[in-house]
Amino acid sequence: MAGPIPILKIGPTLLATIQLELHDTVVDSFQTDVLEEIEKTGASGLIIDISALETVDSYVARMLANTAKMAKLMGTETVIVGMRPAVAATLVRMGYFMEGITTALSLEEGLQLQRQRSDAGDTE
Amino acid sequence: MAGPIPILKIGPTLLATIQLELHDTVVDSFQTDVLEEIEKTGASGLIIDISALETVDSYVARMLANTAKMAKLMGTETVIVGMRPAVAATLVRMGYFMEGITTALSLEEGLQLQRQRSDAGDTE
Repeated sequence: MAGPIPILKIGPTLLATIQLELHDTVVDSFQTDVLEEIEKTGASGLIIDISALETVDSYVARMLANTAKMAKLMGTETVIVGMRPAVAATLVRMGYFMEGITTALSLEEGLQLQRQRSDAGDTE
Repeated sequence: MAGPIPILKIGPTLLATIQLELHDTVVDSFQTDVLEEIEKTGASGLIIDISALETVDSYVARMLANTAKMAKLMGTETVIVGMRPAVAATLVRMGYFMEGITTALSLEEGLQLQRQRSDAGDTE
């Protein structure tokens, strides 16, 4: 884990917890780190926990959405969890709806979602 | 197998492994070869393994997506496996999300996906 954002593996899911306001350089290295961890671990799911973020600017929002799209191209589903009311309000006011991105209220719900997805994949 | 890209049959699935950087002429003949193999073998699934590719330009990306769509029209589902982090990052930054294309992290996962699909198809 080279970057300042910890990336943990919980079963088949990677969990990235963003604990500090993101500066642009941190954001870029986070994206690279996450994708490399996915390749290295073969994780089937990615959860990005942004509950510690009080604000999200458009650059960070786009980076989060793009990271999810990149992970998807590699074959990994992403859930963004813990978006604060103020952050959600700001994003929508900016016209930024994170379309195509799965979100959940809490880490528990995110983990449950990922489990359901992988179960569905196993039995279908 | 006329082209320089080997196409193997594993059960009901065709596996095309791209082992070298793709030039435009190779790309075109690959598309033709794959579709002809699908017709000849009656394969229900196609896996394109691009894990050896360090870079993918927009021409190749479009060709891969189009090949999947052509196979789909013929009745064969495609999974693109092994996309490297740098390739995924480049494609998304180019605004190219490969919508509607199924991806998987590894060949094993791709094969599993195809098996699930054909099982689902058998029982539905």
